[in-house]
Amino acid sequence: MKKICYKPIGIIHSGHKQMEGTPIQSTLSKDSSGQVEVFPEYALGLKDLEGFSHIILIYHFHLSKGYSLLSRPFLENKKHGIFAIRSPKRPNPIGLSVVKLEKKANNILHISEVDIVEGAMLLDIKPYVSKFDVRSGTKDGWLTKKIRDAREHKADNRYSP
Amino acid sequence: MKKICYKPIGIIHSGHKQMEGTPIQSTLSKDSSGQVEVFPEYALGLKDLEGFSHIILIYHFHLSKGYSLLSRPFLENKKHGIFAIRSPKRPNPIGLSVVKLEKKANNILHISEVDIVEGAMLLDIKPYVSKFDVRSGTKDGWLTKKIRDAREHKADNRYSP
Repeated sequence: MKKICYKPIGIIHSGHKQMEGTPIQSTLSKDSSGQVEVFPEYALGLKDLEGFSHIILIYHFHLSKGYSLLSRPFLENKKHGIFAIRSPKRPNPIGLSVVKLEKKANNILHISEVDIVEGAMLLDIKPYVSKFDVRSGTKDGWLTKKIRDAREHKADNRYSP
Repeated sequence: MKKICYKPIGIIHSGHKQMEGTPIQSTLSKDSSGQVEVFPEYALGLKDLEGFSHIILIYHFHLSKGYSLLSRPFLENKKHGIFAIRSPKRPNPIGLSVVKLEKKANNILHISEVDIVEGAMLLDIKPYVSKFDVRSGTKDGWLTKKIRDAREHKADNRYSP
């Protein structure tokens, strides 16, 4: 099957300069801030985004090289299928983060609750819409017992280049 | 900036054979079912996914050609920035759906709550984790007043090839 190619629409800037120490999820990262630099030629596409409190960023994990189909997540030492964990070393290293939109200034989005490493290449932005994106009563698989420890965990260097 | 290329890891099969008439969001699509065909060489990566009730599919909108930075969403006739709406004709036509995982059988995932058109190329699967993916008290921008009409809306042919 042929490849699918995308052109980055921007760059994500973050206080997290390396993978090690970066919060493993944006919900565990209330104090982290950053900026989304949307390239000027796409800035018109941001119209009306300022009405949303949260946005979905889809981006390329630029530091991620290679992958294993079975891998150890940050939250436990057992191996799971790569599609059952959220680690960055994936067959297609696509990142997904819901962040808080603090302010829009021309082509720059000021964001908080950031779990993204500096320099990630932005592929898409979508508005987060609670009626579309929230599921209740979900089952969390192997994470069920681990979730209460998540706040204490930061990324370590296992996926660093 | 150079392009980022991905290799599809599977194909999404759906009862929705064309864009027109497809539910506009998976939360509005409780009765729709489908299958995710993960290519056999990636099947090992599905280990332990069966413990999750919902999964996130990231895929290529295979029917989407071209885009406008300002576009009319299915839910109203006013133009908004493409990054403030969820329409498929985007600079990078990447789709994001949370679907219900009904059953895993080898490399096939049986899913429901499907808002995806038959034949979409799968790029990634992530487990949906309520503690990571749910935000409460969000502001929904231009959608606030429109959301109550969403259930009556299906996709029309405005984005069809």
